[in-house]
Amino acid sequence: MGEVGEFGLIDRIARGAAQGPAVLLGPGDDAAVIRAPDGRVVASTDLLLEGRHFRTDWSTAYQVGRKAAAQNLADIAAMGAVPTALLVGLAAPARLPVSWARQLAAGLADECALVGASVAGGDTTRGETIVIAATALGDLHGRAPVTRAGAHPGDRVAIAGELGWSACGHELLARGLDEPCKALDRHRAPQPPYAQGPAAARAGASAMIDVSDGLLADLGHIARESDVGIDLEPAAFEIPAQLRAAAERLGLDPLGWILTGGEDHALAACYPADDVPQGWTVVGTVTKRSDDQAAPRVTVAGKAWSGSQGWDHFA
Amino acid sequence: MGEVGEFGLIDRIARGAAQGPAVLLGPGDDAAVIRAPDGRVVASTDLLLEGRHFRTDWSTAYQVGRKAAAQNLADIAAMGAVPTALLVGLAAPARLPVSWARQLAAGLADECALVGASVAGGDTTRGETIVIAATALGDLHGRAPVTRAGAHPGDRVAIAGELGWSACGHELLARGLDEPCKALDRHRAPQPPYAQGPAAARAGASAMIDVSDGLLADLGHIARESDVGIDLEPAAFEIPAQLRAAAERLGLDPLGWILTGGEDHALAACYPADDVPQGWTVVGTVTKRSDDQAAPRVTVAGKAWSGSQGWDHFA
Repeated sequence: MGEVGEFGLIDRIARGAAQGPAVLLGPGDDAAVIRAPDGRVVASTDLLLEGRHFRTDWSTAYQVGRKAAAQNLADIAAMGAVPTALLVGLAAPARLPVSWARQLAAGLADECALVGASVAGGDTTRGETIVIAATALGDLHGRAPVTRAGAHPGDRVAIAGELGWSACGHELLARGLDEPCKALDRHRAPQPPYAQGPAAARAGASAMIDVSDGLLADLGHIARESDVGIDLEPAAFEIPAQLRAAAERLGLDPLGWILTGGEDHALAACYPADDVPQGWTVVGTVTKRSDDQAAPRVTVAGKAWSGSQGWDHFA
Repeated sequence: MGEVGEFGLIDRIARGAAQGPAVLLGPGDDAAVIRAPDGRVVASTDLLLEGRHFRTDWSTAYQVGRKAAAQNLADIAAMGAVPTALLVGLAAPARLPVSWARQLAAGLADECALVGASVAGGDTTRGETIVIAATALGDLHGRAPVTRAGAHPGDRVAIAGELGWSACGHELLARGLDEPCKALDRHRAPQPPYAQGPAAARAGASAMIDVSDGLLADLGHIARESDVGIDLEPAAFEIPAQLRAAAERLGLDPLGWILTGGEDHALAACYPADDVPQGWTVVGTVTKRSDDQAAPRVTVAGKAWSGSQGWDHFA
């Protein structure tokens, strides 16, 4: 990176990304200009730090790019919106090979292309370690955003996308294991069910969230913002055979990965009863919040989950 | 920070910032929703790293917040747009006092308030050092963006805002000096001439840029993108007496700070002759680009500047 220079790197990253239809002015100026057809723009930002959110010995640069884009684009989908563009800030050590940055840009661009979005701008600077700051923008297509605050007692709680694979992959990588391959892949680059975000909005979802910190933690956000409780039915979670087998080999409970593992970027939404669209699995019910302030907001078969409660980056 | 927890910190930062009129949905959900009245949004992102872009022993958290917001909001102004919202990603060590984050948030909010914008969303995570990723959004009010690519031979080159103070302040801080105070202040928190961005667009500016890397470097971007040359008239730069005196004490040329010092976030724009609005100082002329490929794009009194050429973060 030191040889190419910062401006050269920006140019390389910019050239690597074809511009989608929403980008009126792409990389290379003080700012990008993106279409916002209904007069609003949805925007979300995330930081990924080397060593904390990814490891260069566990993931390729391409996978890191896929993941950085995916976790941001999933936030846009979780509002019921369609992503239009991604802005990317990159800090990198001078010793980092330019090929690493080029592969990162390719991963970012390819993940964006899945949803018709593109990398519209960025900033690069030298740093001691790799930092990726991604900001995704999106289009609500005239609909109201689906927030965390609209769930009502009686709503069904449903999931689109996969859960537990990323946590399983993290555990395998930490122990130097490499089976099942799908778990490693998903940890390195999740596959959010992007189209299910707008589909949920069209179907009348009352609340929605991207599962980034773990299902119990993220449903806790919905429960608090909506001032309700949520009870999950453990038997409703289909545990894939590969995940179950991997957990058995490690002496772990696969339901723990599913309920508390983060970074799968599934979507969790609440629907007025019987309005749950195709592609979603009902896993629980919205309840009245308990009068007991100390009672857990989210329960599993009526009880507090006794395992881990997701992760808190400062804890 | 470790005691409050990540989610508590997000709440603190969110509560610290009053929401401006453009923010339809503010912090606390998967994404924010911001007005984009003319169907487009301007967006720019920047990374600030502790030790590289700021030092906690040189600047207060409040000043770092002002600067982080200012350098992003200035990018929006440089397109001729009015900032509407800022998204902020923060990585911080667990040992960082919560008061530091709170003061940072206050600085971000106060700088945004200068232009009627607000902090609409964010992300926090633990890191070894402080990283601030800011993304600003803005509204073009129906006008075309003023890019770097529209300058024509014969245009006047003009400046709004101050130049050289930040570089002077950096030099003073590096040497442990503390006069003139204004230079230290401007290095810690620049004062971009935000309103002059939209004013330039209304007056018909053909090209514009935010002076972040140094005037010669940034005018070089305009010259390359517009395929022109630019010649500056050194006598046109009014050198403030305090800046001149500070340079003399250090045995330096104050014009070097003005031409190559970065981070003042002045605006530089090109105007068809005689269209230069109030508040702008004409400092040069757009010329035909030289047939000699090796000739400098930007000259000072017809010659290459022999001093430093701005900074390249990877050099």
